[in-house]
Amino acid sequence: MNKNLTPRMNLIKQDGREVEREKLAILRVLASCQTPVGSKIIARRLKNEYGIDLSERAVRYHLILLDERNMSCKISRRDGRSITQLGLEELGNAMVTDKVGFVIDKIERLAYMTDFDLDNLSGMVPVNISFFAKDQFKPALRAMAQAYKANLCVSDLVCIAHEGDKISDITVPEGQVAFATVCSIVINGTLLKAGIPMDSRFGGTLQFHQHKPWRFTDMIYYTGSSLDPSEIFIASRMTSVSEVARRGEGKVLCNFREIPAVSLPLAEKIIAKLKNAGINGVLVIGEAGKSICEMPVGLNKVGMIMMGGLNPVASAVESNIPAASHAMSGLVPYSSFTSYWEAAGLKKPV
Amino acid sequence: MNKNLTPRMNLIKQDGREVEREKLAILRVLASCQTPVGSKIIARRLKNEYGIDLSERAVRYHLILLDERNMSCKISRRDGRSITQLGLEELGNAMVTDKVGFVIDKIERLAYMTDFDLDNLSGMVPVNISFFAKDQFKPALRAMAQAYKANLCVSDLVCIAHEGDKISDITVPEGQVAFATVCSIVINGTLLKAGIPMDSRFGGTLQFHQHKPWRFTDMIYYTGSSLDPSEIFIASRMTSVSEVARRGEGKVLCNFREIPAVSLPLAEKIIAKLKNAGINGVLVIGEAGKSICEMPVGLNKVGMIMMGGLNPVASAVESNIPAASHAMSGLVPYSSFTSYWEAAGLKKPV
Repeated sequence: MNKNLTPRMNLIKQDGREVEREKLAILRVLASCQTPVGSKIIARRLKNEYGIDLSERAVRYHLILLDERNMSCKISRRDGRSITQLGLEELGNAMVTDKVGFVIDKIERLAYMTDFDLDNLSGMVPVNISFFAKDQFKPALRAMAQAYKANLCVSDLVCIAHEGDKISDITVPEGQVAFATVCSIVINGTLLKAGIPMDSRFGGTLQFHQHKPWRFTDMIYYTGSSLDPSEIFIASRMTSVSEVARRGEGKVLCNFREIPAVSLPLAEKIIAKLKNAGINGVLVIGEAGKSICEMPVGLNKVGMIMMGGLNPVASAVESNIPAASHAMSGLVPYSSFTSYWEAAGLKKPV
Repeated sequence: MNKNLTPRMNLIKQDGREVEREKLAILRVLASCQTPVGSKIIARRLKNEYGIDLSERAVRYHLILLDERNMSCKISRRDGRSITQLGLEELGNAMVTDKVGFVIDKIERLAYMTDFDLDNLSGMVPVNISFFAKDQFKPALRAMAQAYKANLCVSDLVCIAHEGDKISDITVPEGQVAFATVCSIVINGTLLKAGIPMDSRFGGTLQFHQHKPWRFTDMIYYTGSSLDPSEIFIASRMTSVSEVARRGEGKVLCNFREIPAVSLPLAEKIIAKLKNAGINGVLVIGEAGKSICEMPVGLNKVGMIMMGGLNPVASAVESNIPAASHAMSGLVPYSSFTSYWEAAGLKKPV
C-alpha cells in the first residue's frame, strides 16, 4: 500500500464495483438498524453478516461519502448514522447484477442463518412477512382459514406484530399489521445443518386436480430473476388457493428443490421431526432421478415440491384484501410463534 | 414398425412426452384457426410451423383422443375440428417444462417469422397485443400520448382492431378493442435475415435519471421464465413510464440483447434503415465487451438495450386503465399499421 495515500484515496483507487458493493452493504446494515449506529458496530456487522472486512476508519470514509450523497445522515454527536429515504431507494434500485442472483442468494443466506434446533425447539426460523392495513387484518385472517384448514401452508405457526413493534429487524409502519408465516427455507436450513445441501430451483404455481398435486403451470427460476416468484404470482393474481382449498381444483404457490439421492433417508428423518415441531411444507418427495409433477430431476438427485409459505396470504389477496408481501424477509425466534387458529380466534379443526 | 399394430397403437407405444408435445401442437393449430379445420390442413401446418412430421392419419387419431377428452369437437361433416374451452385451458396449463423455454422460444420463433422488407416496406412485423374495454379505449389512447411524445416506444406505428375483427389470427372479443404495438423483436428478425444472430437475454425495468437511461433495477431472464417479463412488470405496477415522460425520472420497460461485435457496422446500417421506416426501439448500443447501463457484456459481443414495445400500454395502466397485454403475440403486415397520432386524433409533435 502506498503510504502517501490517505485511506480515502486508497478507497477510490480500488475497483469501482468493490466500493459500490461495500457501500451497499453499509446501507443494508443501516437499513436494518432502528437506532443510529456508528462505524464500530457497522464494521463488526459487515464482517459477521456479509464477510466484508473493512476497518472502522474505512467505514467512516464510506459514511462521509454516503452523507455527501444524502444517503445517510449523522444523528448522534459521535459518528452514529441513520439511513435516509434516498439511501433506502438506492438500496432498492442499485446493482441489479448483484440483485439478479439475489433471489437465490437470499435463499442461501437465510438457509445458512437458520439455526432452528429440532430437539430443543429453539432458534431462528426464516419467515415471509406480509403487511396488511390495520382495519383489514381481521377479514384477512378469516379469509385465510380455508387455506390453513386444507393444509396449503408450511406451518400454522404465525407471528403477528403491530404498528411500532419490531419483527425481524423491521419496524411495523403506522396503520399496518405485520403477519409472518414460516418460510419453506426452514427445511433448507435444517437439512444444511445436518450436512444435506438442498438446491432450490424455481418458484411456480402448481395445479391441483381432484385434491392432488398435478403439475406446474408457470415457473420462474431463482437464478434468473431479481424478483421473488411468489410475490409476482400473488401480485399478478395467478393463484387460486381458495379454490384448491374448497374443491381441490386450482393453483397454489409451490417451489421445487433437489437433494442428493444418497441423503434421502436422513432427509426423511429430519422432515418427520420438523413435522412434529409443527412445520410441514413438503408436498411431494420423488425418487432418484425420477420426474415429479412432470418436472425432470437431475441424475442422482431427488426432487421435492414444497408448499409456498405465502399461500394463506395469497388466499386473502384472492378475496380482494390487499397485502404487501416480502418473501424470505427475515428470521424470527421459534418461541415467538403462535398458532394461526389462536391468532384468528378460531377452533382448530381436527 | 410392427405391421400388426394399428397406427393408434403405434402412437401409444411412443414415448409419452412426444405424444404430449404433438397433442399440444395440434391444440395450438386449432386455437389459431377461426373456422374448423381438418387433418389435412393440421398436418400441413404442424410441419410448416412446428417442424412436426405427422401423417394425416396420425393427426386423425390424435383428434379422436382429443375429442374423447373434450378438448376438441367435431364441427363439420368431414373431420373439421374446433378447440373447446377445455382445450384452451389445457394449452394454457400443460407442459410447463416446454413453457419455461417458452419466452425465449417465442422470441426465436417470431424473429424467424418476421419478413419485414426494409426496401419495399412490406412484410410481416411482430407485435404485442393489448386488449382494452371498448369504453376505456379513448382515455387509454389519451393516457399514452406522453409516452409517445417522449419516444418511450419502439415505433409510433400501431394497429387497432375492433370486436369481431381479426388481428394476427386472434378474433377480438365482444366489448373489447385490440391495440397492437410494434415489438422490438422486429429488430432481431430484420438482423437475422441479414445474417446477424441477436441473443435476447432478459427483460427488465430500466431506470432513467435526468432524461437519460441509467441502470436496470429489476430483470428476468428469458430462459428462466414461463412468463413474459413485460407482462409481469406491468401487472405488478413496477413501471413509471409517465414519470419518465414527464420529468425524466422513473422506470420503463426495456430489454437487453447482444450481437457479435464483428457484425456491429452492418447492424448499425440496418438499424438506421429501420428508423427511416418508423421503427426505432434501440435505446443504447455499447462497445465490444463493454458494460452498458451497469450490465456486463460477453467477450466479443456488443450489448444493446431496446425499448419495450408495451411502454405506452404501461403508461395507460399507470393511469388505472386496465389492459390485458400479450407480449410478442403475433405478426401483422406492415401495410396495416397506422400512426398512433392519427389513431388518437392528435397532432404529431415536431
